[in-house]
Amino acid sequence: MNDSLRVRLDLAYDGTGFSGWATQPGLRTVQGVLEDAIATVLRSPARLTVAGRTDAGVHARGQVAHLDLPADAWAALPGRAVDRDPGDALCARLAGVLPPDVVVRRAALAPAGFDARFAAVWRRYAYRIDDSRAPDPLTRAWVLRHRRVLDVGAMDRAGAELVGQHDFLAYCKPREGATTIRTLQLLRVTREQGLVVVDVRADAFCHSMVRSLVGALLAVGEGRRPEDWPARVLAAVSRDPGVAVAPPQGLVLEEVGYPADDELAERARVARAVRTLD
Amino acid sequence: MNDSLRVRLDLAYDGTGFSGWATQPGLRTVQGVLEDAIATVLRSPARLTVAGRTDAGVHARGQVAHLDLPADAWAALPGRAVDRDPGDALCARLAGVLPPDVVVRRAALAPAGFDARFAAVWRRYAYRIDDSRAPDPLTRAWVLRHRRVLDVGAMDRAGAELVGQHDFLAYCKPREGATTIRTLQLLRVTREQGLVVVDVRADAFCHSMVRSLVGALLAVGEGRRPEDWPARVLAAVSRDPGVAVAPPQGLVLEEVGYPADDELAERARVARAVRTLD
Repeated sequence: MNDSLRVRLDLAYDGTGFSGWATQPGLRTVQGVLEDAIATVLRSPARLTVAGRTDAGVHARGQVAHLDLPADAWAALPGRAVDRDPGDALCARLAGVLPPDVVVRRAALAPAGFDARFAAVWRRYAYRIDDSRAPDPLTRAWVLRHRRVLDVGAMDRAGAELVGQHDFLAYCKPREGATTIRTLQLLRVTREQGLVVVDVRADAFCHSMVRSLVGALLAVGEGRRPEDWPARVLAAVSRDPGVAVAPPQGLVLEEVGYPADDELAERARVARAVRTLD
Repeated sequence: MNDSLRVRLDLAYDGTGFSGWATQPGLRTVQGVLEDAIATVLRSPARLTVAGRTDAGVHARGQVAHLDLPADAWAALPGRAVDRDPGDALCARLAGVLPPDVVVRRAALAPAGFDARFAAVWRRYAYRIDDSRAPDPLTRAWVLRHRRVLDVGAMDRAGAELVGQHDFLAYCKPREGATTIRTLQLLRVTREQGLVVVDVRADAFCHSMVRSLVGALLAVGEGRRPEDWPARVLAAVSRDPGVAVAPPQGLVLEEVGYPADDELAERARVARAVRTLD
């Protein structure tokens, strides 16, 4: 029998030249470029499932996706030396095919019960802003240049008030029927090596949520809004036209968290048992 | 009378889109772009003198140039608010005219005796290499991707043997009649946040010297050459075809050193006295 195997891919990309993650006809997308490269290397069509569907212009250092393959396709990777780890071989082969703005940092068999999207327990993003008068041109692709000096302490205090489980509708572009209740686990604003860094982690984010949160914090950092304004916007549970969506280029998906392997396996076992009971 | 004033400019640029520093007909150069922008803002032609004439593709975070202006052009900068520092005003005006890959980080009246090129007492460059299997696509414009793992300890020991005053002909593309004797003040190879960083400082560098030094150290880091090979190449005082010139994109001019203001003034006084004696 030819079982299916699931492969986990750890990805990094410069979002500048992409119309976001998700395949769209006629547009250059990360998913499209990666699926083409994988199909070229494996000589069969490939379909990726991803942890975070990043928007146009958003970057990633720690994106995670998975791919299901027939078991023999994994072991019999075209051109692989017999003694080489199939994951390493796949990374190396993909590096030869992919453009320089996408990198598969790691490929490995996924543990039992793994799903890049549905098994993820948190996503962590960083948004970086240079509010100095002398921005570094070498980092301009992934650092937002901001011409007014920001009050990082005020931004950090304002952000801390948003942590917890809430309906984030005020900070979401809602999609039909989808919940906007999320658990914001961390929102911290610090100054690191001259840059203002907004670190944010949640179980999941709804559409444009990180950039809307950053937009609200920028208004506080500039002194245009009081520190309690972002929490008042949140409490209103309705989209506030005063919240600007910050531009995509400052945003990087840094890391995705998953349960430990034994917990993943246990979850999968329980899910199977529930299906059997139905 | 309308004395001439000298203005010091501190510059940063992403060298990717430039054919180097020096103006060349029909090519996009840093000098050309900057002189055009300054002429636009000051409404008169401008000519820059620079500390380090970087090659095509080489970057800078701490480049220094100077510009001589009629005194009234400085005080009467078009559009300047009366209470604003002229240097700050010039930076802000230039930021509105320059493309995003060049930044004037600071503009200020130069101290007496200052000359961006001839008063510089050292230049410091950094060359960054990513030898991991999973390079970061966000830094690819200024970090060399290298597919073989490097022995940083061996590179550092080999480089330390080159420090001091020597004839660096073996590591230079010689120019007609110019000396190739230089004082290498520092050559250190470290691993920082996963990257291999070659830090190098000298009174001055001849053409392609940093990239040739890095090329020799890469051969040591890969184990293709023994640790004492770079010093033997140096001692031979002739161009060695075994030394590859490393690609430009990993190289950044980080900083230029000048004497303290009082020492600059004293040097200028002595130079004037010598001219008077002639």
